[in-house]
Amino acid sequence: MTEPISLFLDLGSRSYEIKVGENLINNAGEFISPLLHQPKVIVVTDDNVAPIWLKTLTDSLDQNNIRHNAIILPAGEQTKDFQHLEKLTRDILSCGIERQSTLIALGGGVIGDITGFAAAVTLRGIDFIQIPTSLLAQVDSSVGGKTGINTVHGKNLIGAFHQPRLVLADISALATLPERQLRAGYAEIVKYGLIDDPKFFEWCELNAANLLDGNPEALRYAVHKSCESKARIVSADEHEKGQRALLNLGHTFGHALEAEVGYGDKLLHGEAVSIGMVMAFELSNRLGLCNQGDAGRLRAHLQNIGMKTTLSGLADHNWTAEKLLDHMSKDKKVMAGSIAFILARGIGKSFIDSDVNMDDVKFVLERALDQF
Amino acid sequence: MTEPISLFLDLGSRSYEIKVGENLINNAGEFISPLLHQPKVIVVTDDNVAPIWLKTLTDSLDQNNIRHNAIILPAGEQTKDFQHLEKLTRDILSCGIERQSTLIALGGGVIGDITGFAAAVTLRGIDFIQIPTSLLAQVDSSVGGKTGINTVHGKNLIGAFHQPRLVLADISALATLPERQLRAGYAEIVKYGLIDDPKFFEWCELNAANLLDGNPEALRYAVHKSCESKARIVSADEHEKGQRALLNLGHTFGHALEAEVGYGDKLLHGEAVSIGMVMAFELSNRLGLCNQGDAGRLRAHLQNIGMKTTLSGLADHNWTAEKLLDHMSKDKKVMAGSIAFILARGIGKSFIDSDVNMDDVKFVLERALDQF
Repeated sequence: MTEPISLFLDLGSRSYEIKVGENLINNAGEFISPLLHQPKVIVVTDDNVAPIWLKTLTDSLDQNNIRHNAIILPAGEQTKDFQHLEKLTRDILSCGIERQSTLIALGGGVIGDITGFAAAVTLRGIDFIQIPTSLLAQVDSSVGGKTGINTVHGKNLIGAFHQPRLVLADISALATLPERQLRAGYAEIVKYGLIDDPKFFEWCELNAANLLDGNPEALRYAVHKSCESKARIVSADEHEKGQRALLNLGHTFGHALEAEVGYGDKLLHGEAVSIGMVMAFELSNRLGLCNQGDAGRLRAHLQNIGMKTTLSGLADHNWTAEKLLDHMSKDKKVMAGSIAFILARGIGKSFIDSDVNMDDVKFVLERALDQF
Repeated sequence: MTEPISLFLDLGSRSYEIKVGENLINNAGEFISPLLHQPKVIVVTDDNVAPIWLKTLTDSLDQNNIRHNAIILPAGEQTKDFQHLEKLTRDILSCGIERQSTLIALGGGVIGDITGFAAAVTLRGIDFIQIPTSLLAQVDSSVGGKTGINTVHGKNLIGAFHQPRLVLADISALATLPERQLRAGYAEIVKYGLIDDPKFFEWCELNAANLLDGNPEALRYAVHKSCESKARIVSADEHEKGQRALLNLGHTFGHALEAEVGYGDKLLHGEAVSIGMVMAFELSNRLGLCNQGDAGRLRAHLQNIGMKTTLSGLADHNWTAEKLLDHMSKDKKVMAGSIAFILARGIGKSFIDSDVNMDDVKFVLERALDQF
């Protein structure tokens, strides 16, 4: 095994390591063992990931004399709801859990979010470890301690800040990922370039095709850079009182699209974010903040590599700008009735603005819906 | 209004005041107003408390220009479950909540626990204020930030540490409390004497009858002393890594009894704790830690004032010591397979022991069941 890259997310007593590399699942027991209060874990995964990675993980746990139970959830965003959380916590308690026990989330963003939330609330908080197997989870959701489930009112509206004790981002796991999932995850990678790293955006323009082809070096570099950016932003603002909200670039629009379509396979989270980032740059352009060149450059890059930038393919849905605005008004970032938007003065120059005129937002939405 | 007593629970940035006095609900708006980020609250209460206190509270909110919604839950321990939590959070989100919003829990322990937990997980954490209207909630559950719901596996197994921003313990509210509820709450009062305050236990012996008669001075003193003890213990150990577990005196036995009978009116939490404290002293006596005099003194005091000390009245249940031991093994205080008991070397001399021989526990349980 080549030595993995090790990043550190500094949060005082809640600090932890993020390891990025290959064959980390095969060797997980070795990394996990020193962190356990007792040699016993409960692995939570889904029925897509389990056939591919569960045995690899439990073999490594066995080699390190760590006892284990496994709980296998249905794959998909629909799993992130109250019913599945209730069943998951019941199954965890049935394993004879103690406060000193540790959960392992083995899977994509859905598994990480619901397992992390279950860890946050079981016995009022137990340890958990993230082993993200999707690109989206590796570059975004597994790092930073945001956990939660969706409700009829919107995405991730019920949850907790609960930091993992370790993140193992195994690049090897990405080899088995369907191309659509890889593409969806890429949206969160290019986001870090758009927020504050124009050089990384250039790297993305040059290397995205290669990365989406599954090139391990490109993947490792992108996961490393993404986790580094995320760790820096989260350690400065764990509970999103300020700058952490930059990570929501494209998400205010994206969440509204997802809420409207319904969580599931019709529109993946990363696809919604991809469209949402384009909308955020169009809004910035309309507000005179960034020029048409930068907005066009983003759109061109995403289109070149086959990313979603419009709602085409979703024409069978009854879209209205009003319904999307209503979803936005339920966003967690609403303060004193006004919605926080992440806008940009250009590539790598994003900022938070809670004072956007909603007529401008409506204009951008209506133009996006005009295609139908 | 006589000036309320004001206690301070010191937890750094999570510190808050506990006010104990009369007519606090009538004046709640005035106390709450300075703590709000926006002049809007959601009051959560139950269908026993709402007809008596909701209008008094909302009148005071109106006088202080605080807008309000109200959510009324069914009264009773059965409400503390996943289904009601899901519905409650959905209703809260339907009110157009923001991260800056505040919930008010107006009611007994059930309302405080489920509302606090809803506040902990809605938008990953919003503010809440406790206005406990039962004696049990005033002297115990409203202070200290333990929130949660029950599961089939046991009591409060799903929850969060989430501190309120203020506790208003209004003695006037106790005047409308059914006698059985007052008695159940008294169990948690006498507990503070048993833990580390033999003088307060003496006060209890002299004044309990008076207190249970509803004497406001006795109630105010007992609530004040109880909150003071609880604040001291919680501020030294917020997350129960150590000494906070002393507050569970009688609860390891008590929770097992409740889990077995089923949460509800057959056996109230305070009644189970009353029996549980007697069992804890009997276990301490059997282990040679405290003499029969102290165990007998506790039992005599509780019996004198009509508190439950045995399982009589619950003979129609199919009790076995094994089932009770099984419930205990699922307690949150289990570590490395062993159950933490709160034992006593005498009145006011309690300590934590995780090394109790389970044969001795079984003996105490079997003797309690022998009466049938």
